[in-house]
Amino acid sequence: MAGELNAERTNAILVTHALSGDAHVCGWHSESDAKPGWWDEMIGPGKYIDTNKYCVICSNVIGGCSGTTGPRSIDPDTGKPYNLTFPVVTVRDMVRAQKKLIDHLGIEKLLAVVGGSMGGMQVLQWSVDYPDSACAIVPIATASHFSPQNIAFDWVAREAIKADPEWKAGEYEDDAGPTRGLGAARMLAHITYLSEQSMSRKFGRTLQNKQSLDFDFNFDFAVESYLEYQGRRFCERFDANSYCYITRATDYFDVAADTGGDIVEAFKKVKADFLVVSFSSDWLFSTAQSRYFVNALLKNKVKTSFCEVKSDYGHDAFLLEVDTLGRMVRDFLYHTYEVRNGRL
Amino acid sequence: MAGELNAERTNAILVTHALSGDAHVCGWHSESDAKPGWWDEMIGPGKYIDTNKYCVICSNVIGGCSGTTGPRSIDPDTGKPYNLTFPVVTVRDMVRAQKKLIDHLGIEKLLAVVGGSMGGMQVLQWSVDYPDSACAIVPIATASHFSPQNIAFDWVAREAIKADPEWKAGEYEDDAGPTRGLGAARMLAHITYLSEQSMSRKFGRTLQNKQSLDFDFNFDFAVESYLEYQGRRFCERFDANSYCYITRATDYFDVAADTGGDIVEAFKKVKADFLVVSFSSDWLFSTAQSRYFVNALLKNKVKTSFCEVKSDYGHDAFLLEVDTLGRMVRDFLYHTYEVRNGRL
Repeated sequence: MAGELNAERTNAILVTHALSGDAHVCGWHSESDAKPGWWDEMIGPGKYIDTNKYCVICSNVIGGCSGTTGPRSIDPDTGKPYNLTFPVVTVRDMVRAQKKLIDHLGIEKLLAVVGGSMGGMQVLQWSVDYPDSACAIVPIATASHFSPQNIAFDWVAREAIKADPEWKAGEYEDDAGPTRGLGAARMLAHITYLSEQSMSRKFGRTLQNKQSLDFDFNFDFAVESYLEYQGRRFCERFDANSYCYITRATDYFDVAADTGGDIVEAFKKVKADFLVVSFSSDWLFSTAQSRYFVNALLKNKVKTSFCEVKSDYGHDAFLLEVDTLGRMVRDFLYHTYEVRNGRL
Repeated sequence: MAGELNAERTNAILVTHALSGDAHVCGWHSESDAKPGWWDEMIGPGKYIDTNKYCVICSNVIGGCSGTTGPRSIDPDTGKPYNLTFPVVTVRDMVRAQKKLIDHLGIEKLLAVVGGSMGGMQVLQWSVDYPDSACAIVPIATASHFSPQNIAFDWVAREAIKADPEWKAGEYEDDAGPTRGLGAARMLAHITYLSEQSMSRKFGRTLQNKQSLDFDFNFDFAVESYLEYQGRRFCERFDANSYCYITRATDYFDVAADTGGDIVEAFKKVKADFLVVSFSSDWLFSTAQSRYFVNALLKNKVKTSFCEVKSDYGHDAFLLEVDTLGRMVRDFLYHTYEVRNGRL
C-alpha cells in the first residue's frame, strides 16, 4: 500500500500487475532494492496517481512467485513444493483473491481498479465479477479475451520451458531450474512487447562490439545480445513453474466466458465508468482488440472514455508513455473522486 | 524445369523458393508425391506463369536439405556429414549457385527472377549482383534487409533447436535429430506467417475435440493442436542443421551491405524492371518494408510497379492470394516478354 486510506475508505485504488510484475508498484521497499517499483513514474506523492490523495493497493497475483501462493509454495500435506500439483489458476481466481484482500481491509467500494496488459484483464474481470465494488475501471493495453495468436505464443513459450531437461516436469531444485527454457520463453515474449519500429530504432542491424560480421552462430547483432541478456536476467527473478501457470491463466482469459462469448451480454452487469487506453503500435493487444470491448461497453450505455495513444513503443508503451497516459488517468480519477464525493 | 527452353533461350524464368520450400515448384515429380509443387496454382500449362510459353527453373538453395549441398551433406575429407563444419552461407551464395546453374544451361539472360519471402531476397540480390542477367525482377512479400525483429525471431528459433539435448551441437544421427527443438522453431515461425485476423477467423478460441476447458497444460484450444501438428510434420521433411544455416543466411541478408547500408547507392547497378508486391496484413515483411526499397528503386529511375494486395492472410498470402498475385505476374511477364521480342 502507498498513501493513506481515508476515514470513509473512499480513496482506495487497486492497481493490478502484468505477467512479470509484482506488488512492488512504486517507491522503495528496502535499501537493497536495485530500483523503485515498476510503475514508480506513475504512482507516488504528487504523481499522476497521487498517493497524497489516494491509497494505492497492489498485491501479487495468485500463482506467481513474488509472495502469494504459487506452484513453488510448500504444500502443507507433503512438505514439498506443489509444482504441477498446484491447480491451474485463472484471471478470475486472481481477482477473487484481490477481492478478499479488499474485504479484509474493510473497503466496500474501490475508487478505481487500474491495470495494463494482464493487469488490464484483471481489471475487466473486476468489472463483471464485482460490479458494485469499484467506481471506475481502467484497462490499459489489454483485451477482453486472449486471441489465438496470444495463445499460440504462450504455447511455444511453455514448450521451450517443458523441453528443457532441467525442468523435470516441474520438479526442479530451487537452484537448478530450466533457465535455458525460461530464458527462451522470455526472449520470445520480449519480442512481442516491442514494435518493429522501436526495435529498428533501438538496434537496427548494429553489430555487437565488432566491426564486421563473423558469419557464425554466436552474437553478431546487438539485438541478439540484448535478447539473451533479457532472458538471463529474467531467470534471476522469475520462476519457471509460475511462468507456466500465469501464462496459462491468460490463455483461459475471456471476460465473456460465462455468456458463451457474448461480450455485450457479459457487460450487462457493469456499473462502473471506464477509461480504456490502447497504443497504436501495440500488436500484442492491438487497438482493434480494445475497440472490440469498448463497442460492447457502449452498447450497454456504460460511460466509457477511450483513447488510442500514438506511440511506436509497442506493447511496452503502457510502461513508457507515462506522461500521456498519466494525464488521462489523473484527470479520470479526479473526476471519479469528485463525483463520488458529490462535488460534480 | 517446367516448360521448354526456346531456341533463343529468351523465355527462361528463375523461381526462387522460400525458407522451407524446395525445387519442386509445380506439377508432380513422381507418383509417390503427396501433393503437387508448392506453387502449382501459379505455375503450369495455361496458368499464370504459363509453362506452355515460358521455361520455369527452380533449384534448391545451398545450405538446404532437399538436394543441394548443405550441412548434412557428406564431407569428402571425413566421410561424415559436415554438420557445423559447413561454412555459414548467405543469400548471395544461394544466388551465386543459381547463376552457375543458369550459365550451365547456356542462358545468357533470364526473362525474370520471381520469388516470395526468402525467395524475394534472392531476387533482390540477383538484381544487384547480376544486373545484366535478368530482364525483370519480381520480389514478393519480402524486404531489402532482415529487420531486428526478424533477426530476433530467428535467434529464439535457433535457441530452441540448440537447447534440445538431441541436437548434440549438430552431431545427431539421421533418425534421432532435435525434433522437439525444430518443432518449436517451426511453431514460432508459423505464428509469424499468419495474421491475427486469419488466426482469429480460422481458430478463434475454439476448443480441440472437447466441450469444455480442462484447465491443464495439454491441448485445450484448436490453435494449440494445430501448431503442434505443424511442428511435428515439419520435422518429417526438414533438417535441423539446415534450418539453422538457412535462417542465419536470412539474418545476414542486406542488399545494401556492400554500400554500407545505403540502399539507393546499392540499386545504382540495377538494370531490370521491377514488379514488387506486398500484402496488407503481412507483419513479418510489411508493406512499409517494401515501400522502403521501392522508394530507393524509384530514386534510381528503375521502372517499378508496386502493389499492396489487401489480404488478411498475413505473410502466407503470397502462397494463398494466387489469383490476385497471378494476374499481376502474368501481365508483367507478358509485357516483359513482348518488349524483349521487340513487339512492344
